[in-house]
Amino acid sequence: MAIRIGINGYGNLGRGVELAVKEAPDMELAAVFTRRDPSRVSILTEGVPVVPAEELLSWKDRIDVLILCGGSATDLPRQTPECAASFTCIDSFDTHARIPEHFRAVDAAAKAAGKVAVISVGWDPGMFSLNRVYANAILPDGKDYTFWGKGVSQGHSDAVRRIKGVKNAKQYTIPVEEALEKVRSGQNPELSTRQKHLRECFVVLEEGADPAAVEKEIKEMPNYFADYDTTVNFISDEEFQRDHSGMAHGGFVFRSGKTGVNKEHSHIIEYSLKLDSNPEFTTSVLTAFARAAFRLQKEGKSGCFTVLDIPPAYLSVQSGEELRAHLL
Amino acid sequence: MAIRIGINGYGNLGRGVELAVKEAPDMELAAVFTRRDPSRVSILTEGVPVVPAEELLSWKDRIDVLILCGGSATDLPRQTPECAASFTCIDSFDTHARIPEHFRAVDAAAKAAGKVAVISVGWDPGMFSLNRVYANAILPDGKDYTFWGKGVSQGHSDAVRRIKGVKNAKQYTIPVEEALEKVRSGQNPELSTRQKHLRECFVVLEEGADPAAVEKEIKEMPNYFADYDTTVNFISDEEFQRDHSGMAHGGFVFRSGKTGVNKEHSHIIEYSLKLDSNPEFTTSVLTAFARAAFRLQKEGKSGCFTVLDIPPAYLSVQSGEELRAHLL
Repeated sequence: MAIRIGINGYGNLGRGVELAVKEAPDMELAAVFTRRDPSRVSILTEGVPVVPAEELLSWKDRIDVLILCGGSATDLPRQTPECAASFTCIDSFDTHARIPEHFRAVDAAAKAAGKVAVISVGWDPGMFSLNRVYANAILPDGKDYTFWGKGVSQGHSDAVRRIKGVKNAKQYTIPVEEALEKVRSGQNPELSTRQKHLRECFVVLEEGADPAAVEKEIKEMPNYFADYDTTVNFISDEEFQRDHSGMAHGGFVFRSGKTGVNKEHSHIIEYSLKLDSNPEFTTSVLTAFARAAFRLQKEGKSGCFTVLDIPPAYLSVQSGEELRAHLL
Repeated sequence: MAIRIGINGYGNLGRGVELAVKEAPDMELAAVFTRRDPSRVSILTEGVPVVPAEELLSWKDRIDVLILCGGSATDLPRQTPECAASFTCIDSFDTHARIPEHFRAVDAAAKAAGKVAVISVGWDPGMFSLNRVYANAILPDGKDYTFWGKGVSQGHSDAVRRIKGVKNAKQYTIPVEEALEKVRSGQNPELSTRQKHLRECFVVLEEGADPAAVEKEIKEMPNYFADYDTTVNFISDEEFQRDHSGMAHGGFVFRSGKTGVNKEHSHIIEYSLKLDSNPEFTTSVLTAFARAAFRLQKEGKSGCFTVLDIPPAYLSVQSGEELRAHLL
């Protein structure tokens, strides 16, 4: 019997989960829950109901895994503990600094209900975290490097859009090629914030706004831009729509470590992602881990898990025997 | 209390494990077992006994995890099932085609004894397998590529050494740069054996041997060289010792996949290793998984495990709480 998936929230992430579930031979989409008027939400999968979020609880016995597709700022800190009281569930909570707190809240709710919840699934946190943990365990004497991009930073784009005179803006985070090469060659460089990433902004101005003033305000913005080499490009509405509506992203995780009697041997572990669609990749990861959540629940486990707590084989549709024969 | 490690076999792998155990704050080396005359085996760690292999069983209660450092051809198929009957143990069995058979033998022995055994730990099988499984689960609609090198292939070096007139030989497997670039750019190429790897041989001839005949015999050797572009270099004993005694290796695992309503988005996952010392990296992985084996045993588990069956957090000295705060 197929794993019955519920999607809570139908934005970019919800749509991505829907596509990933279509690709999974062992899953079926049971329902999409939305806070909007369901009659105005049209989904891709025929015959699947779009249900008002308030009715979620009545679906308790018709959903095997609920995939939470809300935002990390305000939705998930409230939704995941709430849902974990009634559903096996999984989220992509990505505010790194607040993960311990989120974990505790979800763990308490899930344990009390005998449910499995998996949090912070995606690529960072997620696949990048896995690679950091494996590589740190293998090479204890070493140095970690994480680079992001080239890709859009939502937070930085928002910060630019809040500037007076800015009509629209996108900010790309770009890893510095020279820094990547230094790390890749085993030089173990000490890299400042400025040496690791560039920031490039594409800005559409309101009529009459002063480009020089906007550029200055962006470049000097503390925390967001002041510590970086930032480029600001002013473009038209048309150019913005044509060239900057994509959601590509990616990044690199390195561990550079030493072994040997006199630490004479260097080793470089590199993991990198080049993604045409950030939300579709994130939800592909989420959906694979939803399979793991289902299996953990069936084993009678409960409480909060992260990607670090789950055996890789649990993500695969293939049996242990098939995996050992073909992928090990 | 520290995890007491036993090393069975003191060649390149045994020495590598010894170094890795030194780096592990939660482990101590308890004994090294050898088939050679122990008085002729000098190890790096002071105060640790070198014990004849026949006495292994009498150490049953003084070893928490036994790390098997024999070869995959003849040692491990016999040793691992045998040792799993008395010890928590781990090996780096790397004959891919025989893993299912090895797994069954070890699983039966370990289950009967209530012991945990972990097999096929290293980088391929090992870290490369993990990356293949994660990436396949995330991007079900995609293509896998594994490249090896640049590094020495033991099997191919041996094959060249068996040719009449050859005194010594090293064979390097080298990934074709153009093929890597095609994969990296998302072209999903169909690659023949010849298009993926080059083979480069460095050969020291016996006096009076005919270089042209040796070169011809290498290049036409079925399975080993006939399907590849192979270069043969004849060098002196001195050059061989000076330039070809290193044990560097590495490789690349890619998954190139598509998502989207019309499969319009490409994603590339790349994992790569650049290793100065193949045996020291392999044993660094082995030692991290020895920690996991110890923990699984403490939980009361039994039977045979592979890297695919073990939660990543089990490899780390850090607690779940520390990992979530710093590496997730």
